[in-house]
Amino acid sequence: MSAVDETHDPDLGSRVDSANAPECDFPIQNLPFGVFSTAATPTPRVGVAIGDQVLDLARVAEAGLLETPAAVFAEPALNAFMSLGPEVWTATRRRLSALLGPGETGLRDDALVPLPDVRLHLPIAIGDYTDFYASREHATNVGTMFRDPENALMANWLHIPIGYNGRASTVVVDGTAVHRPLGQIKPPGSDAPIFSPCRKLDIELEMGAVVGTPNAMGRPISLAEADAMIFGFVLLNDWSARDIQVWEYQPLGPFQAKAFATTISPWVVTRDALAPYRVAGPPQDPTPLPYLRQDAAMNFDVDLAVDYLPAGGAMATTIARTNFRHMYWSSAQQLTHHAISGCAMRTGDLLGSGTISGTTADSYGSLLELTWNGRDSLPLDGGAERTFIEDGDTVTLRGWCQGQGHRIGFGQAAGKILPAVDF
Amino acid sequence: MSAVDETHDPDLGSRVDSANAPECDFPIQNLPFGVFSTAATPTPRVGVAIGDQVLDLARVAEAGLLETPAAVFAEPALNAFMSLGPEVWTATRRRLSALLGPGETGLRDDALVPLPDVRLHLPIAIGDYTDFYASREHATNVGTMFRDPENALMANWLHIPIGYNGRASTVVVDGTAVHRPLGQIKPPGSDAPIFSPCRKLDIELEMGAVVGTPNAMGRPISLAEADAMIFGFVLLNDWSARDIQVWEYQPLGPFQAKAFATTISPWVVTRDALAPYRVAGPPQDPTPLPYLRQDAAMNFDVDLAVDYLPAGGAMATTIARTNFRHMYWSSAQQLTHHAISGCAMRTGDLLGSGTISGTTADSYGSLLELTWNGRDSLPLDGGAERTFIEDGDTVTLRGWCQGQGHRIGFGQAAGKILPAVDF
Repeated sequence: MSAVDETHDPDLGSRVDSANAPECDFPIQNLPFGVFSTAATPTPRVGVAIGDQVLDLARVAEAGLLETPAAVFAEPALNAFMSLGPEVWTATRRRLSALLGPGETGLRDDALVPLPDVRLHLPIAIGDYTDFYASREHATNVGTMFRDPENALMANWLHIPIGYNGRASTVVVDGTAVHRPLGQIKPPGSDAPIFSPCRKLDIELEMGAVVGTPNAMGRPISLAEADAMIFGFVLLNDWSARDIQVWEYQPLGPFQAKAFATTISPWVVTRDALAPYRVAGPPQDPTPLPYLRQDAAMNFDVDLAVDYLPAGGAMATTIARTNFRHMYWSSAQQLTHHAISGCAMRTGDLLGSGTISGTTADSYGSLLELTWNGRDSLPLDGGAERTFIEDGDTVTLRGWCQGQGHRIGFGQAAGKILPAVDF
Repeated sequence: MSAVDETHDPDLGSRVDSANAPECDFPIQNLPFGVFSTAATPTPRVGVAIGDQVLDLARVAEAGLLETPAAVFAEPALNAFMSLGPEVWTATRRRLSALLGPGETGLRDDALVPLPDVRLHLPIAIGDYTDFYASREHATNVGTMFRDPENALMANWLHIPIGYNGRASTVVVDGTAVHRPLGQIKPPGSDAPIFSPCRKLDIELEMGAVVGTPNAMGRPISLAEADAMIFGFVLLNDWSARDIQVWEYQPLGPFQAKAFATTISPWVVTRDALAPYRVAGPPQDPTPLPYLRQDAAMNFDVDLAVDYLPAGGAMATTIARTNFRHMYWSSAQQLTHHAISGCAMRTGDLLGSGTISGTTADSYGSLLELTWNGRDSLPLDGGAERTFIEDGDTVTLRGWCQGQGHRIGFGQAAGKILPAVDF
C-alpha cells in the first residue's frame, strides 16, 4: 500500500452521510473490520464500520458484490478472512471503498445495520497473545521506580524487543466488566504474603497488532515479511495488578498480575488504512543486530488518550495523552524477533505493543507512572482523586490518526471494574 | 474415582493379547486417549491405545456401543470429548474396559487398528500453554548456579506455584524434529550480543496436565474443583535455549528461549487411570495460604526416564531417572493458583509441571543440571559425551506407573534436533 492509493483520498466521501463528519471515527478512508450480531440475527458475523452504520459483509458477498465467498464473512471471527492474505485484504478494501462511495454503487441499503443496534464481539479468535515492553520512556520509568534510577534500562533492553507470553483466554472486547483480581500480595513490612483483592489495580495503554498470516515453525521471517503479515491494529488495555506483580514476577515474569483480563477495541483498523500515517521511529542506538534493522517507516502516528470515569462520577477526565509513534521498537520488529527462534506465528495472534508512555508526566500510559506508584494523587474533574483504580471506576482508551478533514478512528476499549468476588 | 474401581483390577485381562504383557504401556487398566489417522482413513480422529492396537472410538460409537455420539470422536482433537466432563470420562472408561475385556463383548475386530499402521497427532487443540517451576530440587539447582547458593530459592517460591505463560503454537507431538533455534546470545566477556544458533540447547523433563473442563472468567476454583477439571497427563519436554534465556529473561521471563518447541507424548493418560497411583506430595513448610492447602493425595507416582541418542549413535543411554511424586506443588495447586486472579481456564489448556528433578545427580531433569551448566561432560554408552545437545541428537522422555503385574505407560515424547536454518 502506498499513501497515494485512491482509498486514502481525503476528498473521498461516502453515501453514508454520518461517515463524512470530520470527527467521525469511521470515514470511508478507514473501513475497519469487526464481528457483530443483532437481536434479529444473533449469529456473530463480519462487518465493516462506516459512519454510524455497520456493513454486513456476508450480505454484500451474497449479493455478488465481493469476490470472497460469503461463508468467509459468516464466521464469528476475522480469522478466515485474514488467512486469505494481504492481496485479498487490499482488494477487498478497494472494493468496499468503491461500494461505499456516493451515489448508486450497486450496494443495497439492507446491507447496512445501525451501530446502536448491534452487539460487537471479540473480532479475532486469538491463538497466542504476547505482550511487549517497547516504550523507552515506560521502561525507564519502571526501572527507575523499582530498580536503579542510574541504570533504569536493563542491559538487554536496547538490543531485544523485550516481550513475554500473555494469557489469551481472558482477552475481552470493549465494554466487558472485569472483577478486581484476587491473589497473593506481600504488604510492606510483612514477612509473609496474604490473600487479598488487589490493592494496586492499574491499566496499561497499548496498541495490539493482529497477525493475519502465519509463518511455518522453524522458519524465521524478515522485517518486510513481518510487516506484511500484520492485518491491522486495535487499542489494548493490559489491566495490571501491581501488588500481585511485584511479589510474583521473579524470576519468570508477570503471571496472575496480568492474567485476569486484557481489553481490546472491537474494530481492527487495517494496516492498509494506516499507510498514510507511517512514520519513522526514534533513532536506535546501539544499532540493532541485522535481523532487526529497519530502514522503512514502521511506526504509526496514532494519537492516544485515556479517559477515567470514577464510580458515580458524571463525566470522564482525560488523564493521559500520548502517541504510538514514539515506540522504540516497532510492531514489525517485535514480530520479527518473536519468530527468530523458529516460533510459529498464527493467524489471529495478538501482539501488545507494551505500555505507551511519552516524555512528559501527562503522557504516561499507566497509573503506576502517572501517580509514581501511588505517591501522587491524580485529580479528576468533579473533585475525586485516584492513585489506583477503585471499584466501580471505568477506564476508556481512545485512539485516532488525524487526516485532512477526517480521522482514522480506533473507537474505544473501555472496561468497568467490579468488586472482587467472594472466594 | 477410588482405587477400588473395577477398571483398575490387576487381574483384569484384555481380548487384545498384547495388552496383557507385563511391560506393555497400554494394558486394559490404562486406556489412554489420543488422536490418530491411517493411510486408508487420513482424517484424524479419536482412539484409545490397547496393547499394540488403537481402538477407533468413532467406529465403536457408530456401532452403538457407546453413549457418546460418534461425531465427538470423529474430531481431530480430544476437546469435544473432554468438554463433556468428568462423569462422561469415567463412564466411557468403564464402558471401554468392559468392551476390551476377554471373550465376546460385542466389540468388532474391525474397530481395532494396529499401532504401527497409524500416525499419531497432537491429541488436544491447545488453548493456552502454561509452564510451571514446581520442583524444589530443580529451582534450588538453578538458583544455586545463577544466583546465590545461600539463597537459592527466591522468597516467593515456597508460597506461590511459580509459573509463566508459554507458547501454544509450537507444542508438537512425539517424533517431530526440531530445528536448533536462532537468536541473540551474549558470549562471556562480550560487550554486546551476537546473532547465533543456540550453543546451549537443553531439555526439560516435565509432565503436562491437560485441562478438560473450563471455569468462567472472574471465578476462582477450589483445589477439589481444579483436581476434577484435569482430564489427564502427558509427558512434556520443554526444550530450552539456555544462552538465549540468560540474556533475554530479565525482567519479564523466558520468551524465545522456550518458544521454538515443546514436545508432548501422543497419549493422554487419564486422571481416572492414575487413581491407584495417587500419593501425598512433600510436606509444605511454610503452610501455604488457605486456597492452596491440600489434604488429599494430589501427587502421582510416575517413574520417569530420559534417554539420549547421540547423532550417529547405535543405542540410547538413559541419562536421568526420577519420579513425578517429588514435585513440591501439585498440578491441582498449580491450576487453582492459575485461576485465582479470575483467569479463565479452557478445555485443552496445557500445564507443564516444571522440570522434574530428584535429589541425586542422576535424577536431574535437564542437561543444565546434569552437566552443571556445561562444567561436567556427560558420558554416553558407545563412547560419546555431551554437555548440551548437538545437531542430530535425539532425546526421548518415558514414563510409567508400576502396578501389580502391569504398568500404566505414557508412551514417549521424543525429538531429534536438526541444524539451525539459514537466515
